Amino acid sequence: MIALAVAPEHRVSWERALARQGIEVGASSEVLLAEPSRLAEVDLAGVRWVQSTWAGVDAIDFTTFPADIVLTGLPGVFGPQMAEFVLAHLLARTQRVVERHATHSWDATPPRALKGSRMGVLGAGSIGRAIARAASAFGVDVVGCRWSAVADPAFLRIYGPDEADAFASGLDHLVVVLPSTPHTDRLVDRAMLSLLAPGANLVNVGRGATVDLDAVIEALSTGTLGLAVLDVTDPEPLPSDHPAWSTPNLVITGHTAAVSRPDDVVSFFAANLERYRSGAPLEGVVDPGRGY
Amino acid sequence: MIALAVAPEHRVSWERALARQGIEVGASSEVLLAEPSRLAEVDLAGVRWVQSTWAGVDAIDFTTFPADIVLTGLPGVFGPQMAEFVLAHLLARTQRVVERHATHSWDATPPRALKGSRMGVLGAGSIGRAIARAASAFGVDVVGCRWSAVADPAFLRIYGPDEADAFASGLDHLVVVLPSTPHTDRLVDRAMLSLLAPGANLVNVGRGATVDLDAVIEALSTGTLGLAVLDVTDPEPLPSDHPAWSTPNLVITGHTAAVSRPDDVVSFFAANLERYRSGAPLEGVVDPGRGY
Repeated sequence: MIALAVAPEHRVSWERALARQGIEVGASSEVLLAEPSRLAEVDLAGVRWVQSTWAGVDAIDFTTFPADIVLTGLPGVFGPQMAEFVLAHLLARTQRVVERHATHSWDATPPRALKGSRMGVLGAGSIGRAIARAASAFGVDVVGCRWSAVADPAFLRIYGPDEADAFASGLDHLVVVLPSTPHTDRLVDRAMLSLLAPGANLVNVGRGATVDLDAVIEALSTGTLGLAVLDVTDPEPLPSDHPAWSTPNLVITGHTAAVSRPDDVVSFFAANLERYRSGAPLEGVVDPGRGY
Repeated sequence: MIALAVAPEHRVSWERALARQGIEVGASSEVLLAEPSRLAEVDLAGVRWVQSTWAGVDAIDFTTFPADIVLTGLPGVFGPQMAEFVLAHLLARTQRVVERHATHSWDATPPRALKGSRMGVLGAGSIGRAIARAASAFGVDVVGCRWSAVADPAFLRIYGPDEADAFASGLDHLVVVLPSTPHTDRLVDRAMLSLLAPGANLVNVGRGATVDLDAVIEALSTGTLGLAVLDVTDPEPLPSDHPAWSTPNLVITGHTAAVSRPDDVVSFFAANLERYRSGAPLEGVVDPGRGY
């Protein structure tokens, strides 16, 4: 028996997905499966473990979240979806798919190759790793940048937080998978964009606040960037009168790059529930001090 | 010293690529590097081996091509480019990249996943294998169909030529990589298209004659096909008054899915030249009876 805190319109699909895994839902339990945005309204008395249904947990106020409750995210669940999203947009760019759909005459202009280009993944956790592996399969040279600069076989090199300039220099593609924390606010700014290869592609699938949108609009207008695909913005939704909507080569995808599909999330949760019941360490424990 | 038979406008870039590999070009040699379309004009006296600069050799008339000359194609050279092309168009479809570029308001419609869909590769040689591996990396279930139904680890299953119906049934994506031979003429016809999953995607990166274009146009209009991407047509270029140009969801890419980049081809050729000089078997020998 677990408790469930999700938006009313999502409740039935979550209950069905849980039922398919044989997990019963009750009014209260020491285990709570919750959308982070709902947590502020929930009575957490007696709760010992909260499993988030989202990858990002920045909707949670860690200054008031009880320190004795374990919170788990969803590492590994969204990587495949994110990889499809990122490669779709980069390959569409090199293969000129949008132009091809609009072309109604024989055009033998060859595409550019993704193979041999250089990608940097900023925020190289489990999602970044999945994107790196997918790009590497096409012969892209992929480097990463993250808080702890530990080597990782999915990346040719991992840069630490003090090496962001060296990381960004000459990248053909900058993919941002950062969580939203005080350290990542506007980390992708004019200075970082100026280090990329001319006409580089920017993809943000992390959180909107990590990218300076004004700097992106300027970089697109000067050709510093060739394409920007922003799945996330700050705020969301982006107001309809924002200049981003009319900026050429700026694509905004409405926070859809990875969708919390109940079956995927419940499959992760069910395995964690087994660990919880057997007293084994949980997967994906969030560090409230880091916020991810 | 080798001989070179390419279009005059390509000659300099071929000579440069050969020079980079230390290969000298002379007026005549027992080794000839040739664009298949040029062979009819070339004096083949004294030639023992022709290395094609194209993947497809159907421009060669095998009824008059001397039986004592060895002809080699380019297995392995074009696979990576073809994989980028195919995955670009399929991922753009599931991620709605074309629509996303045209959308100027917040749209939270989730994409479909490529993961878990079913792809069939018709003509499962070295190019088909590269496409299969790239799709499998995204969690696509990939089956193949080819002349010799030998199992291949890049495919969940290989169907033989008598099992084309079972192969085609329920495919979400049909990728055609067939050479043009009497056996493959209009092999992809109305009957085969009707076996695919409703709204399936068709991609032809082989030869135009292998697909019945009228059947494709009809299948797009009825929804049997959701998208057709034809890199090749019959004839090429497709006449400007052909109804294909005005068919919705039909994309024609002007035979650019794989470009003969001199350095890539010469790198394959140089390794074959080593084998030739040391008397080792050549890679990519074409069977004139099969025509590929």
